[in-house]
Amino acid sequence: MKEIPTKIYLSEKEMPTHWYNLRADMKEKHAPFIHPVTHKVCIAEDLYPVFLKKLVEEELDHTNRLIEIPCEVREFYKMFRPSPLVRAYCLERALDTPAEIYYKFEGNNTSGSHKLNSAVAQAYYAKQEGLTSLTTETGAGQWGTALSMACAYFDIDLKVFMVKVSAKQKPYRKAVMETYGATVVPSPSDTTKVGRKILANSPKTGGSLGCAISEAIEVALTSDKCRYVLGSVLDHVVLHQSIIGQECKIALDKYGVTPDIIIGCAGGGSNLGGLIAPFMADKINGKSNTRFIAVEPASCPSLTRGKYAYDFADTGKTTPLIKMYTLGSGFMPSSDHAGGLRFHGMSPIISKLHHDGYFEAVAVEQTAVFEAAIKFARTEGILPAPESAHAIKGAIDEAIKCKQTGEKKSILFGLTGTGYFDLSAYSAYNSNMMKDYIPTDKDLEKGFASIPVVE
Amino acid sequence: MKEIPTKIYLSEKEMPTHWYNLRADMKEKHAPFIHPVTHKVCIAEDLYPVFLKKLVEEELDHTNRLIEIPCEVREFYKMFRPSPLVRAYCLERALDTPAEIYYKFEGNNTSGSHKLNSAVAQAYYAKQEGLTSLTTETGAGQWGTALSMACAYFDIDLKVFMVKVSAKQKPYRKAVMETYGATVVPSPSDTTKVGRKILANSPKTGGSLGCAISEAIEVALTSDKCRYVLGSVLDHVVLHQSIIGQECKIALDKYGVTPDIIIGCAGGGSNLGGLIAPFMADKINGKSNTRFIAVEPASCPSLTRGKYAYDFADTGKTTPLIKMYTLGSGFMPSSDHAGGLRFHGMSPIISKLHHDGYFEAVAVEQTAVFEAAIKFARTEGILPAPESAHAIKGAIDEAIKCKQTGEKKSILFGLTGTGYFDLSAYSAYNSNMMKDYIPTDKDLEKGFASIPVVE
Repeated sequence: MKEIPTKIYLSEKEMPTHWYNLRADMKEKHAPFIHPVTHKVCIAEDLYPVFLKKLVEEELDHTNRLIEIPCEVREFYKMFRPSPLVRAYCLERALDTPAEIYYKFEGNNTSGSHKLNSAVAQAYYAKQEGLTSLTTETGAGQWGTALSMACAYFDIDLKVFMVKVSAKQKPYRKAVMETYGATVVPSPSDTTKVGRKILANSPKTGGSLGCAISEAIEVALTSDKCRYVLGSVLDHVVLHQSIIGQECKIALDKYGVTPDIIIGCAGGGSNLGGLIAPFMADKINGKSNTRFIAVEPASCPSLTRGKYAYDFADTGKTTPLIKMYTLGSGFMPSSDHAGGLRFHGMSPIISKLHHDGYFEAVAVEQTAVFEAAIKFARTEGILPAPESAHAIKGAIDEAIKCKQTGEKKSILFGLTGTGYFDLSAYSAYNSNMMKDYIPTDKDLEKGFASIPVVE
Repeated sequence: MKEIPTKIYLSEKEMPTHWYNLRADMKEKHAPFIHPVTHKVCIAEDLYPVFLKKLVEEELDHTNRLIEIPCEVREFYKMFRPSPLVRAYCLERALDTPAEIYYKFEGNNTSGSHKLNSAVAQAYYAKQEGLTSLTTETGAGQWGTALSMACAYFDIDLKVFMVKVSAKQKPYRKAVMETYGATVVPSPSDTTKVGRKILANSPKTGGSLGCAISEAIEVALTSDKCRYVLGSVLDHVVLHQSIIGQECKIALDKYGVTPDIIIGCAGGGSNLGGLIAPFMADKINGKSNTRFIAVEPASCPSLTRGKYAYDFADTGKTTPLIKMYTLGSGFMPSSDHAGGLRFHGMSPIISKLHHDGYFEAVAVEQTAVFEAAIKFARTEGILPAPESAHAIKGAIDEAIKCKQTGEKKSILFGLTGTGYFDLSAYSAYNSNMMKDYIPTDKDLEKGFASIPVVE
């Protein structure tokens, strides 16, 4: 067997030319979107006023296995891809485990995460469709930064509604987006009807993702040349993120490695879905017996404690209804929670696969996540995003089990991004100011009460 | 000719096994250190109480061309090296220039800069020499972060004296260092004699690099198991940074490219010296006619307006005297200056090469530097450190000249790091709050007055 280098970079010629559409290989497809008012199945025309045409087409395509990556998107990908697949030799030594640990590192770009993979495609489609501007929302700011970079490249105006409290806490995230030419509006704002309404009711609110989505959608609806885009949950985002898994598979195949376990952090599910896509196809088709593990925060446990039901993607209850694992759009994770992955729902693809038994899920507490993050940083030299550190925690736990059993399993996990803009959370951990938070059953019941009844 | 990919990564087998010691090829060596009190030439024994033995040996070695990189250091290098050599196709298109532009990107690691190349070596030597702790100073925090990472890996305690005003302005830099286990002490502090003395005289001072160096040295002198290390200026640091130029040369040779122009930003000179090292050897030996350009800030213009003289490296006047281009250790760049590269002196190697006509130098103003930085960020997708952006500015200027003359020159520049911790400066630029500052002749005279008289 060939010696495995610390980092495997594909050459440009080895890079994938197509995204892989996992839905084409799923034995059972996930349930379709349902219209929030009529409760009928959504068709493309229902989605066009808000979303880009090409994205709607990708969203509804459950049959084509491979979808060509446009040439212009592949050109942009070359600036920050291939991302390295890393053999974590130092972490293996530190854990004294017989396991082989690999991670796919998506943080080597200025957005600091995998979000850029989809942002580029979306901005390119906007250009192709003759649009002049896009709107979106951002919480922690990774998606907003990625989209700012993509829009700067394709010369598209971008308005980002950033949750007000995040904009205050993370002024530097705002500054990055502005440096890339985006307009950043702390939300709720007085620039939209919905924003003014919210401000009239709660002048001092720090805002929420749900509110920011509503403002972004309102702006998109006011112009023929503008659309709303988003960076997770939906199938077209998972499709674009399949570049992650495709690159991993090509790299591992070169060295004859088939992962025994693949681990990803689970927020909206786009990274996780993209990472596992080609490997899951092998499992579905009986070619492998890989275990898949989603790691989610115990404070926002949609897969481990949520319901599999139709629900809204936003707290404003304006989106189509999506069949997914959900805590209810009214569920709010504790403000003590620093580790990202705060979404109440989950990608419908991931949800369906979990429901059908292809996927395990574990929930972990944030102090344990930061402990794992720091162990990783000190041995592998990369300060991870708190979100990514959930996957690190999962991988370390599995590697320790291998030590106990003596098994030489190969573990692959997704390192979605860097923690350079999350240092207030690290400071809180370093000074013992971080607490864990697990919602009670009563907390969950409150969230569940917000899930609509769909016949 | 082979098609040149956007990014060239060396394989592990192609990576350099030796640092290249440029001094061995210099026709004339630079003048030796002089003892600050006796004014006699420094010998190794003068340096041992403060510096690591192995570093002193490297510092005084003017004859061995190649110095083997220890196996353990090469192992660490694999975690973040090879760094990519990037063909800036997008920037070339945006500038509509016939020039080929390449840059070596050293920012793909958590320290965010090239500083890690030397930090690893220094921490490793400390371990080898049986030391248990190191001290250093840091201003903006890149060096302190890099050394924290290296010390975490080799299990060495580290105390970083961070200029107090920087520690306040950049709490997140402090948090990164602490996450890697370093103790960060805002300087001046009450933990050292020199710190207490300074505080007694100026209780409200924001500190300075000179003061932080003095505190770090005082601590190193108190223990047999502790030494002081630093991250620029000295020859052993330039030696370690030669990994940058070595990797560039191997990559470019594969594609038959000899740079017509090599451009680097000039602060203390370690990145610049490392980048140019193997290419300069070819020039000295008559094998190439490459032009070398150092780009420095107009607000701290040591090469373009300084004197070539013996001077102290610190404002506290405790270091050996170094023959270099200097503005005088008493020179203070304007506090309006946001773009880094604030050192009053310059690497003795770079200084000597400039003095002997091998090197050009240009000074640029910070608003022009940030303009270039943003053009680069929006086309090449990387938000550069303000320091690195000086080299970008130099490269863009040369590429525009090529457009005017129609010459298809190949330009290589060093992109030393990322600007993720410099966003307050970007914000200032974005909101038109940034001003330029050029010292008057009178300002310079004041600095020159602090240069000691050495017979």
